[in-house]
Amino acid sequence: MTQPKMRLEHDALGTIAVPADRCWGAQTQRALLHFAIGQERFPRALLRALGLAKRAAALTNVALGRLDRVRGEAIAVAAMRLQAGELDDQFPLTIWQSGSGTQTNMNANEVLAHLANRQLGCSPDSPEAVHPNDHCNLGQSTNDLFPTLMHIATVEQLHQQLLPALTTLHACLAHQAQAWADILKLGRTHLQDAVPLTLGQAFSAYVAQIAGGRQHIESVLPQLYPLAQGGTAVGTGLNTAPGFAEQFADYLAQWTGLPFCSAPNKFAALAGHEPLVALSGMLSVLAVSLNKLANDIRLLGSGPRGGLGELSLPANEPGSSIMPGKVNPTQCEVLTMVCAQVMGNHTTITFAAAQGQLELNVFKPVILYNLLQSLQLLAEAMVSFTAYCLTDLQPQPAQMRHWLDRSLMLVTALSPQIGYEQAAHLAQAALAKGTTLAEEAVASGCLSAEEVERLLQPGRMLGPR
Amino acid sequence: MTQPKMRLEHDALGTIAVPADRCWGAQTQRALLHFAIGQERFPRALLRALGLAKRAAALTNVALGRLDRVRGEAIAVAAMRLQAGELDDQFPLTIWQSGSGTQTNMNANEVLAHLANRQLGCSPDSPEAVHPNDHCNLGQSTNDLFPTLMHIATVEQLHQQLLPALTTLHACLAHQAQAWADILKLGRTHLQDAVPLTLGQAFSAYVAQIAGGRQHIESVLPQLYPLAQGGTAVGTGLNTAPGFAEQFADYLAQWTGLPFCSAPNKFAALAGHEPLVALSGMLSVLAVSLNKLANDIRLLGSGPRGGLGELSLPANEPGSSIMPGKVNPTQCEVLTMVCAQVMGNHTTITFAAAQGQLELNVFKPVILYNLLQSLQLLAEAMVSFTAYCLTDLQPQPAQMRHWLDRSLMLVTALSPQIGYEQAAHLAQAALAKGTTLAEEAVASGCLSAEEVERLLQPGRMLGPR
Amino acid sequence: MTQPKMRLEHDALGTIAVPADRCWGAQTQRALLHFAIGQERFPRALLRALGLAKRAAALTNVALGRLDRVRGEAIAVAAMRLQAGELDDQFPLTIWQSGSGTQTNMNANEVLAHLANRQLGCSPDSPEAVHPNDHCNLGQSTNDLFPTLMHIATVEQLHQQLLPALTTLHACLAHQAQAWADILKLGRTHLQDAVPLTLGQAFSAYVAQIAGGRQHIESVLPQLYPLAQGGTAVGTGLNTAPGFAEQFADYLAQWTGLPFCSAPNKFAALAGHEPLVALSGMLSVLAVSLNKLANDIRLLGSGPRGGLGELSLPANEPGSSIMPGKVNPTQCEVLTMVCAQVMGNHTTITFAAAQGQLELNVFKPVILYNLLQSLQLLAEAMVSFTAYCLTDLQPQPAQMRHWLDRSLMLVTALSPQIGYEQAAHLAQAALAKGTTLAEEAVASGCLSAEEVERLLQPGRMLGPR
Amino acid sequence: MTQPKMRLEHDALGTIAVPADRCWGAQTQRALLHFAIGQERFPRALLRALGLAKRAAALTNVALGRLDRVRGEAIAVAAMRLQAGELDDQFPLTIWQSGSGTQTNMNANEVLAHLANRQLGCSPDSPEAVHPNDHCNLGQSTNDLFPTLMHIATVEQLHQQLLPALTTLHACLAHQAQAWADILKLGRTHLQDAVPLTLGQAFSAYVAQIAGGRQHIESVLPQLYPLAQGGTAVGTGLNTAPGFAEQFADYLAQWTGLPFCSAPNKFAALAGHEPLVALSGMLSVLAVSLNKLANDIRLLGSGPRGGLGELSLPANEPGSSIMPGKVNPTQCEVLTMVCAQVMGNHTTITFAAAQGQLELNVFKPVILYNLLQSLQLLAEAMVSFTAYCLTDLQPQPAQMRHWLDRSLMLVTALSPQIGYEQAAHLAQAALAKGTTLAEEAVASGCLSAEEVERLLQPGRMLGPR
Repeated sequence: MTQPKMRLEHDALGTIAVPADRCWGAQTQRALLHFAIGQERFPRALLRALGLAKRAAALTNVALGRLDRVRGEAIAVAAMRLQAGELDDQFPLTIWQSGSGTQTNMNANEVLAHLANRQLGCSPDSPEAVHPNDHCNLGQSTNDLFPTLMHIATVEQLHQQLLPALTTLHACLAHQAQAWADILKLGRTHLQDAVPLTLGQAFSAYVAQIAGGRQHIESVLPQLYPLAQGGTAVGTGLNTAPGFAEQFADYLAQWTGLPFCSAPNKFAALAGHEPLVALSGMLSVLAVSLNKLANDIRLLGSGPRGGLGELSLPANEPGSSIMPGKVNPTQCEVLTMVCAQVMGNHTTITFAAAQGQLELNVFKPVILYNLLQSLQLLAEAMVSFTAYCLTDLQPQPAQMRHWLDRSLMLVTALSPQIGYEQAAHLAQAALAKGTTLAEEAVASGCLSAEEVERLLQPGRMLGPR
Repeated sequence: MTQPKMRLEHDALGTIAVPADRCWGAQTQRALLHFAIGQERFPRALLRALGLAKRAAALTNVALGRLDRVRGEAIAVAAMRLQAGELDDQFPLTIWQSGSGTQTNMNANEVLAHLANRQLGCSPDSPEAVHPNDHCNLGQSTNDLFPTLMHIATVEQLHQQLLPALTTLHACLAHQAQAWADILKLGRTHLQDAVPLTLGQAFSAYVAQIAGGRQHIESVLPQLYPLAQGGTAVGTGLNTAPGFAEQFADYLAQWTGLPFCSAPNKFAALAGHEPLVALSGMLSVLAVSLNKLANDIRLLGSGPRGGLGELSLPANEPGSSIMPGKVNPTQCEVLTMVCAQVMGNHTTITFAAAQGQLELNVFKPVILYNLLQSLQLLAEAMVSFTAYCLTDLQPQPAQMRHWLDRSLMLVTALSPQIGYEQAAHLAQAALAKGTTLAEEAVASGCLSAEEVERLLQPGRMLGPR
Repeated sequence: MTQPKMRLEHDALGTIAVPADRCWGAQTQRALLHFAIGQERFPRALLRALGLAKRAAALTNVALGRLDRVRGEAIAVAAMRLQAGELDDQFPLTIWQSGSGTQTNMNANEVLAHLANRQLGCSPDSPEAVHPNDHCNLGQSTNDLFPTLMHIATVEQLHQQLLPALTTLHACLAHQAQAWADILKLGRTHLQDAVPLTLGQAFSAYVAQIAGGRQHIESVLPQLYPLAQGGTAVGTGLNTAPGFAEQFADYLAQWTGLPFCSAPNKFAALAGHEPLVALSGMLSVLAVSLNKLANDIRLLGSGPRGGLGELSLPANEPGSSIMPGKVNPTQCEVLTMVCAQVMGNHTTITFAAAQGQLELNVFKPVILYNLLQSLQLLAEAMVSFTAYCLTDLQPQPAQMRHWLDRSLMLVTALSPQIGYEQAAHLAQAALAKGTTLAEEAVASGCLSAEEVERLLQPGRMLGPR
Repeated sequence: MTQPKMRLEHDALGTIAVPADRCWGAQTQRALLHFAIGQERFPRALLRALGLAKRAAALTNVALGRLDRVRGEAIAVAAMRLQAGELDDQFPLTIWQSGSGTQTNMNANEVLAHLANRQLGCSPDSPEAVHPNDHCNLGQSTNDLFPTLMHIATVEQLHQQLLPALTTLHACLAHQAQAWADILKLGRTHLQDAVPLTLGQAFSAYVAQIAGGRQHIESVLPQLYPLAQGGTAVGTGLNTAPGFAEQFADYLAQWTGLPFCSAPNKFAALAGHEPLVALSGMLSVLAVSLNKLANDIRLLGSGPRGGLGELSLPANEPGSSIMPGKVNPTQCEVLTMVCAQVMGNHTTITFAAAQGQLELNVFKPVILYNLLQSLQLLAEAMVSFTAYCLTDLQPQPAQMRHWLDRSLMLVTALSPQIGYEQAAHLAQAALAKGTTLAEEAVASGCLSAEEVERLLQPGRMLGPR
């Protein structure tokens, strides 16, 4: 293998060789050496946010007279390319770096300076050159930039991916709750036979849970719009200009269409990430609901001949490499695996967020990585589950009726007439003798056959009377 | 030891001997045998809720004509005693029982029936007797009652204990943030010297975090007021009367002064406990903030002579059994231990809530126990921490100034004038030679002594300029 | 309410009034004021360990000539009472105190000194008096004593409660695996019908899992026997005598019959609690196995008429307050709730153990409390589950045969003859048409009726051929 | 964009178009459609294990006469390429698929069949062709193959990456503990000044913790060597040959040099993954130790002028984008972030492993992914931390001496002479007046100046006397 051509780059610690065909500089190159850990990279959402933020900072600095227009616009042009995804291959680092995200910020500063200088035809050492720290990072610190990116990337992914996926899932369930409102089935509590309900009623619970989950998630949004930018190194805003924070947030709000604003307390925004933990917590609540939904579908679809068999699931793929003809609830499985991941990610995020010290929390990359992973996985798994499982679910009313007709728990409807203890004896007798409730009720003499027939109709048991 | 006198009680499974001086019946006694597990009991908040709910149910049944006034009022009288705490020793069971809480519900039904019959002068077998199931549990199922209790107990404890504790802590911190607004100190990021801020600014972060935590907690409340009562066994409301759910909720709202209402979807209210998971998640977010607060105080108070020594903590007790004169940050320790417990409890609650099946989640007792424990511990630890640590905190401005004067990171303020790299070289040189920044700056010739003196004032570094 | 009579006690911080009828002193009384948090108390196992350790320390100090025999024996006599459980009501503090456990250690020192002085007829201020620090705590620090107690209490509870419970459960399962070796049933993977196995084979998995869980737990024991005692305040052993650590551990080994020894590195024993985290981790692994065991039993026992119905569970109590005759798998429920608690406790313990700083971890009480809770709950829930669920489990072979006969997955046995794809088509056809496999196989012409009959015997499918 | 050329492939569900330049078949292609979720892929370790296992299966089938030599060897040749890493780009699926890993197994079967047929010059539809299920998967099920891969990949990564990294870290720490055995420093408990120890003693704790962590990890290995292969679909071994399991395990043992063997109970090996949970638990214990190690180094290295300053950390990169000359403990940060991830992964793994149902656990991919991630991250972070932080750590003995000389806790050494309370008063007085202990001790008249000088030597306080 031939050695790649190299150029020399320097930073405050000295000189280092960088591949000549790469735009990054000395600090990125050092980080490749010192942080050769893992394969986890920041996703597109973060790089887009980085482009947005660097562009906003450059334009704000120009507007406030802190940066000359030539440099500022050159940086802004490069930042737009970063935002658009054209520079993703210039970001070789994993998330395993400084806990403040310094290396990724400097990676951006170096790449933008390199491209701006190239556009301006400047040597990096000329007086007119764009400098990574003095210009690309002007009025900023990683300490305020990175939490800003965390909010931007998270909120955008929430709006663009998670909420639409929730809408899709909710609509499908709501349709089914209505469409199946008249399909009677046996209720089961403690996995034991209970009193009847309709399949639509059962699905209405999922509808309510998903709607509630959405409310929980949306309740966190007001704390996610405020941005840390403007706090610089410790929250005071040293070395940034009055008005920078507000102008920056305005750009972001304008470009994203989302109500980003400047955080009222920058100290808290650098040192803690509670709004992100809260969001993760609410994703975990959603995972709780989704886990049950998937488990219920899997259970109701168990069979096809040796299980409950009340739902028939679509056959998306051969289920088994050894058992021919087997169809498995694989969408339920992938969804529950995602739920487990989201719950574990929440532990990671909670632990990481609790460890801030004094003016900074230095677990930012791991918090962001886990949160964006949770958002993406939940969204895509919900879309997949809706499209490839839920939509094609086929109720099996005959099988439902079969279970219902055999059940002994309809006896509950006799209780108001004959009392709990007498009713219990009927059910126990029917189970022991293999008879039906009606037979036992009539035989016991406590009710007439007509009364029994009238009272034991499942269709009469679907609400208060 | 003499055997206690016993009386015979029966239920649907047969007859069993119960201590004669106890009010409970057969099912409670059976549970003592079959669930001899652990020592964890439901706290007062749950028993009060049980009293409130049974009273409301009895009065509602009377009002709706389902229960005769004599029995109904006798039950209500006994329920008021339960609510008031007079019957707590009649509830011998631990939380380790049926996952629906059936044994605790039946314990209440049995005790109330016993007391009502005693009041009415009825033998339990007489036709006029109050029956645990047919009357005390009329129109109810454990499946709707217990989740109702979970919401009532949680919301009351939240309002009565947690929110006031948050108010107390917030007020103390807010006062300190203001009182200490002019005390300059060294900022520290990555635990390394950074640029200055004031102690008041540092404390303003805690104020913001606690306020944010309160917002997060309050955002969950709207989902906690709806009550499951009226859903009976599976959510349909079989065997309850139209209007029961609403009337019941009205009583609760009236008696507690809290806006309890009837849950719009009872199926979801029995089968899932997402609102409680969400609350637990928000308590965990609060724990994240409190953990950092306590850690920071502990760190700033480290010493008294071999640490940072910026804060002096009150000496509440001798710190060590072996080291005389030692004072330890024990309130910080107890608070961080509570935070660890709350985070672990959230794992328990999340796991438990995710495991519902079909029409019921059967992890109710363990969810409630952990949630009420988290609420109590956080509240009491915040009160204790405020009273015995925070209130008596003594800033040590001289020590803060000592650190600040030695710091090299004031160099940041020179950066806009001389550029990042030149500034870095000054700081590196001062560190290597043991000189001050001012000395190096002047020696380098890049700034005059006057400029250096003007620029290096920490008091000028507290905001954008 | 009349005020209790008080006496004055003093410590290094001054004088405080203590109820006259209590044996504790000033520091315990201060702690009641400053740590009014929670209700969680250390269990008997810890107080017994405290008695054992204080007795061993006193006798060792006498043996090494550091303590006069009169004081030493008076302390030892009082410590034996503590060990035996006679003094439990002299320990009023909760676990929410100093993170080193100082208050509980001082509580013991104060109570023992009080009782020793009473026995010796000494005023606490006389020169001959036993002093809590100078004599009861001689050569000890809370920092080495408390981790010593953590190991003693944990190991004793492990040997006395957990391992016997595991033995009981394992024996019951092993018996059933053997007794039911010939009962054929349908296998289910992905909750979908799969190829057959016997009920005994299915139970052999539980046997193997429980045996593996025991191995995992026992593998941690070698790191639990070493005791921290002798390290005093920071691990160096300052103020203790050469030989103290070893002699102390010898006493413990002798009195408990367990191979306790002196920890080779005392610094690690004070600053970290990895062996306890490891044990908690292994309890969590056991919880993973038990959770599945309980879930499987609950699922196989679902019904009685609307579920799988392959197992019949004992009716320990009426299952429902509203549905007469209902029987629920309550022992499964309590066991899975305990599993959830154990998993959450492990999160608490892990978080707490990771937070040590320099020479000490100050999350000791919360670690110990959670670990002892996990040990007790697992042990008692296993005993209960074995006694009240497993032992009385009734297989329903007819129902198992019913499912097996209808299943289409026996087609797997045809695969080696006719290939996977052809076999898949047979199964698909049978499902679509509602026919049997045999009918389809013969109709397809790919196998003769004799071949089909021979190949489709479930009894031939229980192993490699 | 031009459409890629496609070929048609079929499976039991029908026909589907596959990119012509890809080796996979219909099931892989279907999976790309149905599981468009996430970006997480199985790492090399899993694909290598897949190659090893498919080769072993083919050769075993040939040896046992179940597969003709021509097909068997063609499969084995292709499998060796998979093992060697030449086919990684033929595995396009993420881990988000069937919970049994069926799609990845079928991906391998399809690719191997395709390559074998190509090598043999067979059309896939010819009678001589190699079939993905009938030949590549002969005698196997995903249900026994995938858990086999889980053990192989995990154990190999443990031996090849984690244990060597532990060795490196341990050696570095052990060297430092010895080299720094005579550097005196102030001990700190509760972050408050305590009695002295040497830096070597402090580091000996880390040595002991890492050694203990290794023991914990190694204690799990005996349960990881047994392989599930041979159990086929439900653990019975249906459709595999007698001897297959043992011969297969022998190949694996031979090729890897590790003592793999056939699992004694295949039912447990399919339905549970406790040994992997146990390993994850032990990785989490290691994370507990590493978290404290990194935190301690960060704390001792705090400064350079406003912190403890007892250790100087290497300057690997400019620490701040805004604060010139700043050096941050980034290796500590990345290590603690990894620890947080490992703890969260353990929650995911525990939750996932607890959810098995009947004959199968269907959370296999998520368990494996998290476990391999934990293994890789811990190993690489330990290597990085050792190389770029620990190795170049510079103790600052003068600073250590500075803290030690000012400390008041040396008073502990006077306690045996003058009693705890008198000693406490000396320390309190010195702190209040700003004097030294020696001054106060002499002034109090309780000890002579000579005694005080002799007793207050830190070098005398490093062990029992």
